[in-house]
Amino acid sequence: MKLLRIGPPGDESWAVLAPDRSGAERLWAASTVLADGEPAFTPAALARIRAALADGTLPQSASDPAAVRLGSPIPRPGSIVCVGMNYVAHAAESGARPPQIPVLFLKPANTAAGPFDAAPIPPLAQKYDWEVELGVVIGSPLSYAASTDEAMAAVAGYLVANDLSEREYQIPGEAGQWTKGKSLPASTPLGPWFVPADELDVGNLRLRSWVNGEPRQDSNTADMIFDVPTLVHHASQYMSLEPGDVVLTGTPEGVALSGRFPYLQTGDVVEMEIEGLGRMRQEFYRAGSPRTSSEA
Amino acid sequence: MKLLRIGPPGDESWAVLAPDRSGAERLWAASTVLADGEPAFTPAALARIRAALADGTLPQSASDPAAVRLGSPIPRPGSIVCVGMNYVAHAAESGARPPQIPVLFLKPANTAAGPFDAAPIPPLAQKYDWEVELGVVIGSPLSYAASTDEAMAAVAGYLVANDLSEREYQIPGEAGQWTKGKSLPASTPLGPWFVPADELDVGNLRLRSWVNGEPRQDSNTADMIFDVPTLVHHASQYMSLEPGDVVLTGTPEGVALSGRFPYLQTGDVVEMEIEGLGRMRQEFYRAGSPRTSSEA
Repeated sequence: MKLLRIGPPGDESWAVLAPDRSGAERLWAASTVLADGEPAFTPAALARIRAALADGTLPQSASDPAAVRLGSPIPRPGSIVCVGMNYVAHAAESGARPPQIPVLFLKPANTAAGPFDAAPIPPLAQKYDWEVELGVVIGSPLSYAASTDEAMAAVAGYLVANDLSEREYQIPGEAGQWTKGKSLPASTPLGPWFVPADELDVGNLRLRSWVNGEPRQDSNTADMIFDVPTLVHHASQYMSLEPGDVVLTGTPEGVALSGRFPYLQTGDVVEMEIEGLGRMRQEFYRAGSPRTSSEA
Repeated sequence: MKLLRIGPPGDESWAVLAPDRSGAERLWAASTVLADGEPAFTPAALARIRAALADGTLPQSASDPAAVRLGSPIPRPGSIVCVGMNYVAHAAESGARPPQIPVLFLKPANTAAGPFDAAPIPPLAQKYDWEVELGVVIGSPLSYAASTDEAMAAVAGYLVANDLSEREYQIPGEAGQWTKGKSLPASTPLGPWFVPADELDVGNLRLRSWVNGEPRQDSNTADMIFDVPTLVHHASQYMSLEPGDVVLTGTPEGVALSGRFPYLQTGDVVEMEIEGLGRMRQEFYRAGSPRTSSEA
């Protein structure tokens, strides 16, 4: 089952992409079994949607699956919690040693963007970089989880994330400056949908990225230094996780920061895919508003 | 004019604390001039509230000002954007040199807490520390501000903030670990209210904190390394600021991290006051849920 947000920016509604009785994939309107404003990522909502889909009581969506716009499957996360350097080869290409404990940082929640929306390169940015990541959607409140099992019980599902990062703003080295490279407008495309947690083996998913059709990243979630249960458990010791929070689990090697590939330019197309979670695609353009020259 | 949120947790409504015609301070219900769910911190809402107050058309609140609970004046910020080491003497007591450009980091938005609510010390925390800060409430969208004037036009008002920080979790040194010391549940008491920006000279406000009645911090916003216009302008170069975002502008010297004072313990009472912005007070208790012993 694939949970999506369809419609124009700011006016999306919940939908499901799933096969009909003949096996053909159809788009179903999920709002009929959700209360007004109710999100689809809580356990109760997911169960209701799944039951209605099985019963055949979910109406087909009037939208054309091939033409409809997809928004971020999580329209406005509470927090976007990120994990740094969680793949050995990426830590090495970034000039860092593998961490001994998970490295956590935050992105502003308003950076979430649609999976196929055109993506702005910041006006003066010279080192805008892609990062494919497995995103974990939190479905239930979680604080000070006593075990990884308790942590995983709070996970609603998974999606593909692009943790866009401006390296010049990120790297200078003063404490907290990661924030500057990781907060830029629309810098967290999410999608194309999320898949409920019980439908995947999250510890063994191939994840890949391409720029203009050329392969960049190609790894597997099995290569994570800290696996998903460890990360969610760990994060919950330091912050309250809430339904609609998204935890990005780190990116594997193959980004521009390595020096092996050019940074993103106007017209570049980034595609990202994770096994079982679909593929998203962003075409990049240079945002028009000028930054003042005195800024770093 | 003081803008407040009054009522039980999760069910607060907007109110105004302002003198009546006799000069006595009264509590007024602001919801009568706000649309359902409309926040009070946009320019249009503030103008409407101010006009109704001047006209005498704002009804008096049924709540007793002396007994009512105050919630965070910003019930759920979009982002809480923080500035590190923005006072020379605090940078020194933290073992850091004064920064050359503003140091930015984020706290999860769900850390916002009421100004007088009992405040939890994390279950195993040994170094929980207070930080009085001037908080800037954003009232209008701001991205890539072209000038400090444009930045300041987006500011709705100011409030007192306690940027509670767990130093053991914050300091270890790996990139991003500031997040762990700055994200704990209810670690950002805000309040007691916010005051519109045009009613204050934000560049010259005394700010102070006390623990159990003993003075801790005593400084002035004039001592900031980077002033409020510079900070808001700077942050907007790296992230889209939105109405309801709060920018915390850094803390002056006098925290426990200096080694001169003990860290917070159960029963401690922290009070914080900024000239013209009122005083808030939190009594601390040890949160009950155990963290597992394997956590840092």
